[in-house]
Amino acid sequence: MSTQKTKRNWKEKLHEIIYEADTPEGKLFDVILLIAILFSITIVMLESVNTINDKYSYVLNISEWAITILFTIEYILRVISIKKPSKYIFSFYGIIDLLSTIPKYLSVIFVGTNTLVALRALRLLRVFRILKLARFIGESNHLSQAIKASLARISVFLFFVLIICIILGSLMYLIEGAENGFTSIPRSVYWAIVTLTTVGYGDIAPGTPLGQFIASAIMILGYAIIAIPTGIVSSEIVKKTELDLNTQSCPHCATEGHDDDAIYCYNCGNKLHE
Amino acid sequence: MSTQKTKRNWKEKLHEIIYEADTPEGKLFDVILLIAILFSITIVMLESVNTINDKYSYVLNISEWAITILFTIEYILRVISIKKPSKYIFSFYGIIDLLSTIPKYLSVIFVGTNTLVALRALRLLRVFRILKLARFIGESNHLSQAIKASLARISVFLFFVLIICIILGSLMYLIEGAENGFTSIPRSVYWAIVTLTTVGYGDIAPGTPLGQFIASAIMILGYAIIAIPTGIVSSEIVKKTELDLNTQSCPHCATEGHDDDAIYCYNCGNKLHE
Amino acid sequence: MSTQKTKRNWKEKLHEIIYEADTPEGKLFDVILLIAILFSITIVMLESVNTINDKYSYVLNISEWAITILFTIEYILRVISIKKPSKYIFSFYGIIDLLSTIPKYLSVIFVGTNTLVALRALRLLRVFRILKLARFIGESNHLSQAIKASLARISVFLFFVLIICIILGSLMYLIEGAENGFTSIPRSVYWAIVTLTTVGYGDIAPGTPLGQFIASAIMILGYAIIAIPTGIVSSEIVKKTELDLNTQSCPHCATEGHDDDAIYCYNCGNKLHE
Amino acid sequence: MSTQKTKRNWKEKLHEIIYEADTPEGKLFDVILLIAILFSITIVMLESVNTINDKYSYVLNISEWAITILFTIEYILRVISIKKPSKYIFSFYGIIDLLSTIPKYLSVIFVGTNTLVALRALRLLRVFRILKLARFIGESNHLSQAIKASLARISVFLFFVLIICIILGSLMYLIEGAENGFTSIPRSVYWAIVTLTTVGYGDIAPGTPLGQFIASAIMILGYAIIAIPTGIVSSEIVKKTELDLNTQSCPHCATEGHDDDAIYCYNCGNKLHE
Repeated sequence: MSTQKTKRNWKEKLHEIIYEADTPEGKLFDVILLIAILFSITIVMLESVNTINDKYSYVLNISEWAITILFTIEYILRVISIKKPSKYIFSFYGIIDLLSTIPKYLSVIFVGTNTLVALRALRLLRVFRILKLARFIGESNHLSQAIKASLARISVFLFFVLIICIILGSLMYLIEGAENGFTSIPRSVYWAIVTLTTVGYGDIAPGTPLGQFIASAIMILGYAIIAIPTGIVSSEIVKKTELDLNTQSCPHCATEGHDDDAIYCYNCGNKLHE
Repeated sequence: MSTQKTKRNWKEKLHEIIYEADTPEGKLFDVILLIAILFSITIVMLESVNTINDKYSYVLNISEWAITILFTIEYILRVISIKKPSKYIFSFYGIIDLLSTIPKYLSVIFVGTNTLVALRALRLLRVFRILKLARFIGESNHLSQAIKASLARISVFLFFVLIICIILGSLMYLIEGAENGFTSIPRSVYWAIVTLTTVGYGDIAPGTPLGQFIASAIMILGYAIIAIPTGIVSSEIVKKTELDLNTQSCPHCATEGHDDDAIYCYNCGNKLHE
Repeated sequence: MSTQKTKRNWKEKLHEIIYEADTPEGKLFDVILLIAILFSITIVMLESVNTINDKYSYVLNISEWAITILFTIEYILRVISIKKPSKYIFSFYGIIDLLSTIPKYLSVIFVGTNTLVALRALRLLRVFRILKLARFIGESNHLSQAIKASLARISVFLFFVLIICIILGSLMYLIEGAENGFTSIPRSVYWAIVTLTTVGYGDIAPGTPLGQFIASAIMILGYAIIAIPTGIVSSEIVKKTELDLNTQSCPHCATEGHDDDAIYCYNCGNKLHE
Repeated sequence: MSTQKTKRNWKEKLHEIIYEADTPEGKLFDVILLIAILFSITIVMLESVNTINDKYSYVLNISEWAITILFTIEYILRVISIKKPSKYIFSFYGIIDLLSTIPKYLSVIFVGTNTLVALRALRLLRVFRILKLARFIGESNHLSQAIKASLARISVFLFFVLIICIILGSLMYLIEGAENGFTSIPRSVYWAIVTLTTVGYGDIAPGTPLGQFIASAIMILGYAIIAIPTGIVSSEIVKKTELDLNTQSCPHCATEGHDDDAIYCYNCGNKLHE
């Protein structure tokens, strides 16, 4: 695209600024967007603190309107500067961009009615603006590949963990009973998950000696099996890293496994790249 | 089996539907069973929540009876469709299938008497239906092999952890005493396990400076030694994965597990590639 | 030793029974000792539970005396059956054996006096009998080698963790102050260790927003740096495991890296063992 | 330097004692400094404990003055014995050395005024003396290299963890509300971090069934993703360790880092072994 800079209209230029980051204007746009997102998240957070909201309600409201209008402009520009608007509108970021803009407008409509909970839920959507930050994170393909490769095995593992938690939680419900906080099986399963994952809130804790004995067994089990997902991911990353070293093969003897900075083949001594 | 489809009675067909999953009927049976199990577990859980059980007692009871009759039919079909019924009846899944069906029938017999605790324990058996889900999980032989290979070493490790917990728990019993919740050695050992595994409920916490100092040492120890089971499993999975990469088998003796750069078979000494 | 069974006195036979496990008598001795140790630990633990001690005081006392006399006989037999008694007496196990026997005898001497704390401390020594169990654990040289090799690096790591905890603990003492439970620097450092190791009792928890912000940073730090000891031990075990595979070299072409079950060299095709 | 011992003035000798550790005097200086630092940290800690400070206020004050004067002398000697004093003064250790000395002197100036908080903050600076200990720790280049190499990837990972915590925290703020302790989004995010990192204080714990369900999901997520930083660091250390095993260097161009089975240098193409 940068080689055909001669014949372009403002739409193409806008596209370059908004969707790309290899021009000074594009970089500036990204920096402004990044600051706007961080500023926006800070406002949403501060608004939720009662003492701050009571005091600075007016300032926060104005700031939120400014941010909302800015993001609305960004949304419109993104839609009109792309060739196929539907491609952006129905993409992950398109939906996030829309969802994080509308709550403020809706707050005007619903202001008279008493639908407080619905409003609170809508306001929350603005937090999702943080996902727009994901655009700025380097791909880190390497890492995400390793995670994807381990996902199936980790899911099977987590499924087993869940089965263990349901059985152990039910057992504890029987042993401890309602008097020690184990009032129902779902609550006991919740406790088992809290214990096995070594979180350990302490809001529910076993009171009987037998319950404490089983709790100890769950803890030691949780302490031992945390090794399994770690082992899966480690081996996957090690494998990915090793494969990464071995992309080139010698054109003379076809030996593989050269280091990234190798110039000569370690096996036949010929040059790797002519 | 699918090549001799001409001469078969209904028993063989039933066997194929129930025990296999490569026909549309077999797949349908599996899906229905899966839904029934998940539905069943949900009912058992909801029954244990007092507020729900009081309100929907009738609906839950009817649903539980429907599920129980369904699983009873499944059990009978499994017994009659297999050539050697004893092979199924005394298998792991056979016992689970039976144990998860009988509690509801027993609840009719014991309804007049006041054996509440026994009934509660019996009802719990229905939770074990979740183990039937294990049938649907892919073998994941790879992972379980690595776990089996590390089991002995992890057991030795956990045994050492237990010895450390007993000694440190006894020490804390002496230092903290009953006034800080360390009322007995078993309870102190329970606390030591809670601390070393980094669960940390907080139901028992050291109160004296010396106790807090030793607790800190236990935590740092626990933080450091969690590396050991992880290291064991990681190395085992890495090894298993590496062996897995060598997919070639010897054309002469069919031995597998050759290294990537192997030229001759390590078992029969013949060339791997002509 | 088993080939020269003709000319032996009872001392040699006793030595074989007590110190070795390759004769039926030796195995029987080990099993009895194992049961005695587990029984002994159970008694010490039960004695510390007030409700049990009040009820079964007499039975526990008799059992403890029986165990003590049994271990005394074992100690005497070990001393007289070895050629150099001093070698056993001043060894790790010799000291443990003696220390775990004397407390009961001393309890007779101090029975009149009111030195309760000293007695409680002495009684505790009997818990150390559990270390006698270490005799029965397989060497697991592999694992302990990997741990020894990583010990220096893990110590440096833990030292850094301690420095971080002291600085962060002092910072929290300044921010939170006595009103939120951070009454002194040692107590704040204790809290920092509890947080960084992800134990999280909750007996001391930050109350101010700034304190909670720093606490969050400590948690995420702790969550990230737990990777370091794990990485150290993992790499050490992987290395040890890899070296383990490569002990034999081909007598014909000196290639190394053969699998344990290799018969022929994978490089030159000759037999590895004639 | 040790070969030109004939012509040296006292400044050079002082430099050798203070900055180096290969002479008996240099070692002695290091040992004294080490003890002084540990002693100093202990005093700062004890001073913060009210019961101890009230009782031993005089002794602690005298000790602190002695330490401060000792460190002042050390600072002056370090400045005059180095050729370029600015190089030391503006170095990391130079700043630490100065910052840890001045608080005591400032306490004399501000003694009359009531600036307690500022004084407390200043006093805290003395804790930073512990960083002087870092001088004594072996370089452990290996480990720090692996950490540096994984830093970028771990930062990306922690950034994702933070985004997850903000979204989940906001969600819990909506579900649980102020009545269960989730009074604001920042506080809820704090709770999400406490849960995801498996710290689990229990100062804020979900009360509603839906909240506990989401909390369980967060815990299991936290339990699974702790594998990722561990995997990153492990693979990095494994890689570093593997490179370390290849100790041979090319006799022609001195390049290091050859594979174990390399015959030719990958840099200059000459034979590694004649």
